[in-house]
Amino acid sequence: MNYGVIIRVLGSLLVFKGIMLLPAIMVSFLYKEAAVSSFLLTVGLTLLVGIPCMRLSHSSRKIKTKEALVIVAGGWIVISFFGALPFYFSGSIPHLMDAFFEAVSGFTTTGATILDDIEALPKGILFWRSFTHWLGGMGILVLTLAILPAIGVGGFQIFKAESPGPISDKLVPKMHQTATILYTAYFGMTVLQTILLMFGGLDLYEALTHTFGTVGTGGFSIYNDSAGAYDSAYVQWVITVFMIAAGVNFALYYELYRKKIGNIVENTELRLYLSLLITAMLALFISIQFQQGGDWTANLRHTSFQVASIMTTTGYTTADYELWSPFAQSIIFFLMFIGGCAGSTGGGIKVIRILVLFKLVKRQILKVLHPRAMVPIQIQGRMLQADTIASVTSFAILYILILTGGMFVLSIEGLDLVSAVSASAATLGNIGPGFGFIGPTQTYSEFSYVSKGVLSLFMLMGRLELFTVFILLTPSFWRESR
Amino acid sequence: MNYGVIIRVLGSLLVFKGIMLLPAIMVSFLYKEAAVSSFLLTVGLTLLVGIPCMRLSHSSRKIKTKEALVIVAGGWIVISFFGALPFYFSGSIPHLMDAFFEAVSGFTTTGATILDDIEALPKGILFWRSFTHWLGGMGILVLTLAILPAIGVGGFQIFKAESPGPISDKLVPKMHQTATILYTAYFGMTVLQTILLMFGGLDLYEALTHTFGTVGTGGFSIYNDSAGAYDSAYVQWVITVFMIAAGVNFALYYELYRKKIGNIVENTELRLYLSLLITAMLALFISIQFQQGGDWTANLRHTSFQVASIMTTTGYTTADYELWSPFAQSIIFFLMFIGGCAGSTGGGIKVIRILVLFKLVKRQILKVLHPRAMVPIQIQGRMLQADTIASVTSFAILYILILTGGMFVLSIEGLDLVSAVSASAATLGNIGPGFGFIGPTQTYSEFSYVSKGVLSLFMLMGRLELFTVFILLTPSFWRESR
Repeated sequence: MNYGVIIRVLGSLLVFKGIMLLPAIMVSFLYKEAAVSSFLLTVGLTLLVGIPCMRLSHSSRKIKTKEALVIVAGGWIVISFFGALPFYFSGSIPHLMDAFFEAVSGFTTTGATILDDIEALPKGILFWRSFTHWLGGMGILVLTLAILPAIGVGGFQIFKAESPGPISDKLVPKMHQTATILYTAYFGMTVLQTILLMFGGLDLYEALTHTFGTVGTGGFSIYNDSAGAYDSAYVQWVITVFMIAAGVNFALYYELYRKKIGNIVENTELRLYLSLLITAMLALFISIQFQQGGDWTANLRHTSFQVASIMTTTGYTTADYELWSPFAQSIIFFLMFIGGCAGSTGGGIKVIRILVLFKLVKRQILKVLHPRAMVPIQIQGRMLQADTIASVTSFAILYILILTGGMFVLSIEGLDLVSAVSASAATLGNIGPGFGFIGPTQTYSEFSYVSKGVLSLFMLMGRLELFTVFILLTPSFWRESR
Repeated sequence: MNYGVIIRVLGSLLVFKGIMLLPAIMVSFLYKEAAVSSFLLTVGLTLLVGIPCMRLSHSSRKIKTKEALVIVAGGWIVISFFGALPFYFSGSIPHLMDAFFEAVSGFTTTGATILDDIEALPKGILFWRSFTHWLGGMGILVLTLAILPAIGVGGFQIFKAESPGPISDKLVPKMHQTATILYTAYFGMTVLQTILLMFGGLDLYEALTHTFGTVGTGGFSIYNDSAGAYDSAYVQWVITVFMIAAGVNFALYYELYRKKIGNIVENTELRLYLSLLITAMLALFISIQFQQGGDWTANLRHTSFQVASIMTTTGYTTADYELWSPFAQSIIFFLMFIGGCAGSTGGGIKVIRILVLFKLVKRQILKVLHPRAMVPIQIQGRMLQADTIASVTSFAILYILILTGGMFVLSIEGLDLVSAVSASAATLGNIGPGFGFIGPTQTYSEFSYVSKGVLSLFMLMGRLELFTVFILLTPSFWRESR
């Protein structure tokens, strides 16, 4: 293990993160808040640690798989720790573990909060809290790569470990350019949504914070009632559309830019993603309309919002879905396991994996009838390699294993089955709200610090696609010499 | 599709089933019950349909995969229908759908009942109800093969489709002999447990009915309080030990007979099966002792009984586990998905599949670190073929898909998440009791007839290892000409 290069990359990351605090400092300054001093203290500490690390000389510039894994997992933990300091220093979140939980929840775009009264916090702190979603959404290490290509180390390994989805392709040969393209699309989407929200009457601060939560599929709001605080149908529909857009593979926006519409229309994952969304929206809408009647436009808006929010793993809420019918709740529960497309900012299992799993079952049905037939699994005319299939199935199995572990840990604390399973699923899938103890009107504040630690780990595992973090927990990873 | 051979085999099955009603008729006769007439009517009807079918001449004697699947699935449905007639004719279960549900639950060794007052039923009827467990446990078609080898058709296809577990090996080259060996072990176990229960003070009728429920991992009791009706620690421990024994691969009893102890000790599946049982028993015992204190011998007995009962998918209860701590409940819930060993009478996913899934994840972890390494998956020194791995993973995926479907269907009826998921899992896993609406003190009587139909299908799918039944539901099965 080349610790020199690991420390050097983490150092650059810290310095970069220090710079990223500037917008929040500006907000705090503009609103003349005392919290500005806690930001400055954080920046000072971050640079104090970051700069010497960054300047560390090291033997080799080439990064191996193992080092990339440590850099990515370690990077996210370090960033979350330093990202938690403003919450802690400003007194907004008095306990360091709570502050860490909130920062992990932010960077991993989970949106699970331990804050029972969000509105009591300074605006600068809330801005930073939402901004962590934006930074984490597309991958903070990828962002570092895009801006600091001079770092020069094996960026593709890092990109692979940080990018969501089973197959990570570079869009263009140069890693640095790929990262730039993705961030350009991300930035464009951010600007567009902010403007549209401002048309709906939000001020810049409100528009930005909710945009960060949307395009990063995070879900932190600056209001206790989440996005439900806006009664405006226009605002809720804008957020719905952008949640859906953020759940799409960002590579497709590059195709849009290149005017290759055919590649978009024929994208199998996109088709399944949209089909699932629309089916769930319709089923939920019919169920709610049937159950409680009333204004159908409002029902359609709330159900569409909720389907988009849960499936893309954003986690905003405009309605208390625990008051809905059992059928409606089972749809929401089901959606907690789907997630966005690969290469989007959404979490969860991801639509492409669901597709592969479906095709596996379909093939097996053929196999039972024709045991000697060779049936390849194809997606968009490309035959999937056995390795890819194995990685998808292992991912799904590990997902369930981790969920089971979470159920056990949380049930020791006294949580009932539904709460324990949905809290595990809501953190591992980077969603935020779930059912029961952590339902849409609840927060994560009541958990013990042990459980908060476990759930923080779940959020990190979910964001980094399980194996990146899980491998670091196996003793053999550290024992092996190679 | 050669319908001639299908009808002929189903006819033999019916005739055989008619004969199998004799013990229950004897019980009914001895206790001078009016129900004896309903049995005689059933036998008459069964033979009236069965004998002409059996005598049907058909073109070819060779069975193809498709026909074997139709024979097995069709056989189980036909047998359940005719097996339900005594319940219906005797007026014990007034609605035919309820009677069918109860018979399916019996033959598939699920043990889910729609009877709210079991003890009100005639003894002959209850004897038949428990006897269906015994007939279904080892496979009623395999039994037919063992007794009627003259039927001469491709028995291995039927054996493969009916036997639990991903790999069906014949113990000896002749199918007929394999079936005989398995049934000899099954019969011996039945005699032994019956004698041991009679030592505990049960009369022959009580001992036999509870033995049928145990060795078939069924779970029907003749008492409303299930096995909890016996206060005797001795009786409960005997049942616990035999539930565990019935969850072991019956091929291992043949190894025991051949004095190949090494093959038993080294059996990986058996080791994992026992490790899981013991770990769960200890965890549950410690949790309960810690929670409610009291007599530790009674706590150990109840927790061991419950672990064995749920994991082997028997479903007897001696305690209301819904009053236990959330941690204890999460263990029970977890065990609902494990099941017995392949080639046992237990249902569920099966321990061998859990083992393969674990090894898949372990291999993937190695693969992330060494992407080009070839890592075979071995069980007991035998490398698993890609086809076997694909069949195991597809099984697990389909299991979850069917559970999800069940959750949706039952939630439409108004069931909460826990009840809907656990009712689906309890029927698909052939267990019986679950949580909430179908908790250990509840029955399935309150479900709508639509849900009872769906759950009957789940029991059949679970018993026949999903694909056998699932394939018949795909239009392409019936469309294909070959």
